[in-house]
Amino acid sequence: MGTGPGDPSLLTLRAVQLMQTADVVLYDRLVSDDILQMIHPGARMVYVGKAKGMHSSKQEDIHDLLLQFAEEGATVLRLKGGDPYVFGRGGEELEYLESRGIRVWCVPGITAAAGICAELGIPMTHRGVATSVRFLTGHVRDAPEAQAQLDECISVASDPHTTLVVYMGLTKLRELVATLTRNGLDPATPAVAVERGTTVHQRAVGAPLNEFVDKVERVGLQSPTLLVIGGVCALSPHYPELLASEVIDGQIVPRPRVGRQLLSEAQDREGEGTLA
Amino acid sequence: MGTGPGDPSLLTLRAVQLMQTADVVLYDRLVSDDILQMIHPGARMVYVGKAKGMHSSKQEDIHDLLLQFAEEGATVLRLKGGDPYVFGRGGEELEYLESRGIRVWCVPGITAAAGICAELGIPMTHRGVATSVRFLTGHVRDAPEAQAQLDECISVASDPHTTLVVYMGLTKLRELVATLTRNGLDPATPAVAVERGTTVHQRAVGAPLNEFVDKVERVGLQSPTLLVIGGVCALSPHYPELLASEVIDGQIVPRPRVGRQLLSEAQDREGEGTLA
Repeated sequence: MGTGPGDPSLLTLRAVQLMQTADVVLYDRLVSDDILQMIHPGARMVYVGKAKGMHSSKQEDIHDLLLQFAEEGATVLRLKGGDPYVFGRGGEELEYLESRGIRVWCVPGITAAAGICAELGIPMTHRGVATSVRFLTGHVRDAPEAQAQLDECISVASDPHTTLVVYMGLTKLRELVATLTRNGLDPATPAVAVERGTTVHQRAVGAPLNEFVDKVERVGLQSPTLLVIGGVCALSPHYPELLASEVIDGQIVPRPRVGRQLLSEAQDREGEGTLA
Repeated sequence: MGTGPGDPSLLTLRAVQLMQTADVVLYDRLVSDDILQMIHPGARMVYVGKAKGMHSSKQEDIHDLLLQFAEEGATVLRLKGGDPYVFGRGGEELEYLESRGIRVWCVPGITAAAGICAELGIPMTHRGVATSVRFLTGHVRDAPEAQAQLDECISVASDPHTTLVVYMGLTKLRELVATLTRNGLDPATPAVAVERGTTVHQRAVGAPLNEFVDKVERVGLQSPTLLVIGGVCALSPHYPELLASEVIDGQIVPRPRVGRQLLSEAQDREGEGTLA
């Protein structure tokens, strides 16, 4: 089940219903605390993410746990940040379990791209600017074959009419931007990087592509960070602010409040023309 | 605000909250009846979609209406099927209103690709099969410039490691498939077409790309239909069924129930190992 980008109000009704009824819940660090607190207290909680100083659980171990609980007769809820089928490895878990006779349903979630672009007012597609949007990951597991595939992906992604959204792209950022510009993407293309988007900890910066890597490094954004590259970034009413933002004492200044804070302030006032 | 692909249980909590408080609601035919019924009875409902024998409202007329209601001090909710920023023209409405001093928030929704792929068990990305996913539209508004852009988009989309999802692609389907195969996509690539996905009216078929157009036409799928093209389609546990489905007396046979029907049946039984 996808839990969306972090803001609990972006959970689906079905997600909330399942969080009230599951026997066992498997989760990792991409699921926000606000969301975990909504799970009914009787559920058995199993953490399968990265522990302090430890590597994350191996995918095989997660498969085994899911199978074991399901075979015991439990209703098992596997929580994923975002959407299970957008770089969430949901397909691998489904394949493993279905082939062993366990019935599995996938519940979609708001993927980080949709949640964060809504938050920042970046239209992923926009008439005359972007006729297509593409989701890529910067995270490569099995080199060198996967690296070759990724390079190929990135080179064809250098299309000015396509918005590019990169998940887990921080560690490969310099390489990614170099590949894009080498393949013809305009170095002036607007770009935005968003850490922990839609949560109250959100930090975001913007810059043209040729200044983007330096700015992201200067700000020291941490994972999970989403990258959005394309002309549509400049359509955001917040883009001037994202361009102007700088780091002072380790903080991004100015640090705008996130949408749900602003929306709830607006709802507290009456008689104003607002639109959601 | 995005309302998702049609299944009301895929609405977000924030969506439901806003549906309880808005003064005016603007909607079109892509928003399902089940969802419209959840809006509080005091809201003024304004239909801005296609009427019988009429063209759909012009985008400019929708802009004017939104502005007019907002200037009157109303809290206005503009409903979109799926996500407002994935071929939903949300960016145009935001730009128009923000430039006239109206405050606008975008609320993301489950886009049809995510909702339908979850429903059918198609992982949009999958290790070793698809390292990227791309959303395209087959609907072109201003030829010939837009057509040229779209052709360019489709030609670079012929990448075997990228899942291609096409919104509103029915009328251009033959052309689209021809462009993809001409640019090197394997004619044996699995493909799926889904009409009114996630609703109880869902109809879906599958075929390899070289038989896809004929099958879709034979079945007579209507808009809104989503197309998914790529190796990941074959990973769906339902793919054999989608390949085998045929039309008998205008009905797709077999016609599988949608996920929420199956899930609710499973929840009615006890002591079974199920996984959501």
